Amino acid sequence: MSDLPLAIGIDFGGTSVKTGVLYRGNLIEEAPRIETQNFESAHPLIERIHETIKDLRSKHPRIEAIGVGMPGFVDFPTGMVHNLTNVKGWQRIYLKRELNQLSNLPVTVENDANCMAYAEWKRGSGRGMNHLVALTLGTGVGGGIVVDGRMVRGADFVAGELGQTSIDYQGPDGAYGNRGSLEDYVGNQQITDLAHAAYFEAGNPRERSECDPAHLSILGQQGDKIALSIWDKVAKMLSTSLMNCCWLLNPEAIILGGGVAKAGSLLFDPLEKHLRAQLSPAFKENLRLLPARFGNEAGMVGAATLALEEAGFNVDD
Amino acid sequence: MSDLPLAIGIDFGGTSVKTGVLYRGNLIEEAPRIETQNFESAHPLIERIHETIKDLRSKHPRIEAIGVGMPGFVDFPTGMVHNLTNVKGWQRIYLKRELNQLSNLPVTVENDANCMAYAEWKRGSGRGMNHLVALTLGTGVGGGIVVDGRMVRGADFVAGELGQTSIDYQGPDGAYGNRGSLEDYVGNQQITDLAHAAYFEAGNPRERSECDPAHLSILGQQGDKIALSIWDKVAKMLSTSLMNCCWLLNPEAIILGGGVAKAGSLLFDPLEKHLRAQLSPAFKENLRLLPARFGNEAGMVGAATLALEEAGFNVDD
Repeated sequence: MSDLPLAIGIDFGGTSVKTGVLYRGNLIEEAPRIETQNFESAHPLIERIHETIKDLRSKHPRIEAIGVGMPGFVDFPTGMVHNLTNVKGWQRIYLKRELNQLSNLPVTVENDANCMAYAEWKRGSGRGMNHLVALTLGTGVGGGIVVDGRMVRGADFVAGELGQTSIDYQGPDGAYGNRGSLEDYVGNQQITDLAHAAYFEAGNPRERSECDPAHLSILGQQGDKIALSIWDKVAKMLSTSLMNCCWLLNPEAIILGGGVAKAGSLLFDPLEKHLRAQLSPAFKENLRLLPARFGNEAGMVGAATLALEEAGFNVDD
Repeated sequence: MSDLPLAIGIDFGGTSVKTGVLYRGNLIEEAPRIETQNFESAHPLIERIHETIKDLRSKHPRIEAIGVGMPGFVDFPTGMVHNLTNVKGWQRIYLKRELNQLSNLPVTVENDANCMAYAEWKRGSGRGMNHLVALTLGTGVGGGIVVDGRMVRGADFVAGELGQTSIDYQGPDGAYGNRGSLEDYVGNQQITDLAHAAYFEAGNPRERSECDPAHLSILGQQGDKIALSIWDKVAKMLSTSLMNCCWLLNPEAIILGGGVAKAGSLLFDPLEKHLRAQLSPAFKENLRLLPARFGNEAGMVGAATLALEEAGFNVDD
């Protein structure tokens, strides 16, 4: 191993906190997870996270920075977490300052979907690109955007929220009153609901637990017509938000990760078809639709890479 | 007048070409318009435009650059115009090179909506901002985007096309096969159609010519309920695309110009309501919805300002 620095990447999820040591985008050690429901407020949980950090630093003395990906809006410069919906006591928590005081290391705090996008941009499928849209498709839909070789954060550091964009101006209210929001159409539960209803209507009912994206992938691979029609429908809905990104931002590539993207060509083939059918020849030939390189470790990889870059290290190696 | 440079701004429209001399965003002389239908191909029209440029330069010797806004996609670095739908013979025309060879001045060629956005950013309602979305609402809907203090052009210089983004994934095919494209809902003709149908259905039919946005503004100011309901509907549809831009880009301001935006508070009041009802508290308070400063001269102002900046002059004065 060379002298290149290590970093700690923390993926703070709704149910557990993952903490790992990263070397050039490779996870070389992951600590035991911390369950968030064991904590009634933010500060004890932050102290518990710092215990894990201390353990990892005792084994890896060359750790130079700490990056944290959070499931909510973050004020990027101050590292203040606005609010977490699924974890108790997280309102306006200055996580960057607290972890920095505890660890004496440079700390970067960023939205989790931006961390995933950052991982793909710096270490994954989007390496070397200057214009990029990255999505993570799971229970919700997260996103991150790169324009002109910079992560787009916007005026209040809230940019990149593809899951909140609308595909139907007359659709139902989303989490923020946003009508027809993408994640209310192509989230895990919504895909499962679509499939469950389709099998029922076809006179071939299946248990709801056998209609989730993982099962739909197996069924699709077996040539099941209903499963294929659901993937086509998901692709059609998803293509609308992706097309909007193409017309607004004209990226070189769109990168898709998360559990739903594991469907592979079952999703990507109809998505290519629906997407390219809605773009101009002036740019559709150059556009690439790519699977994410990273899976569950994407958040840790992105947070660690971003933290190193913010601390002044060159991560474009 | 100080020693600050002058520039020629050209607004190349579907029916006529407007050419003016600009001083710090002020139109100090406009040449007679050139009608595009008098020309069967690109090169005679380019030579005719150059005649106008020569006339203007003979009167204003300190002209330092020429900027052109085009109603179509432009390859920004080379200034090649891909294709014009409404003007004969414009396919892959290297306009920048041709005008540069004729004039011996630095020439910049850009999409017209980007020029409008550039005018508002550098000289108009968006001055000093770093994150901006600008729209022009007329027969079609054009747009331009500024992120982190730079115009967003994208990988193939096609970015910013708000009018082509979708508000309904099941909507009718747009100009590029893009289903439910915004300009097919809130373009001049579509607003007129909506109003015409609404008056008919209400048992109060009006001539179609009295249902256009200009008439609807007068009717709305008089408190006409149907006109007000149409403006509310237009605002609701338009808010969907603007909301998408907010979630993706989190701009400081959205600037609205063009004929339809002349409706003023009839459009802006319901638009504020629909837009803010679909955003997070994390950023909706800071967002500003602003009318454009420039009207018909926006294209010339933006093209001239951009040309000066590209030629190395400081336009942030």
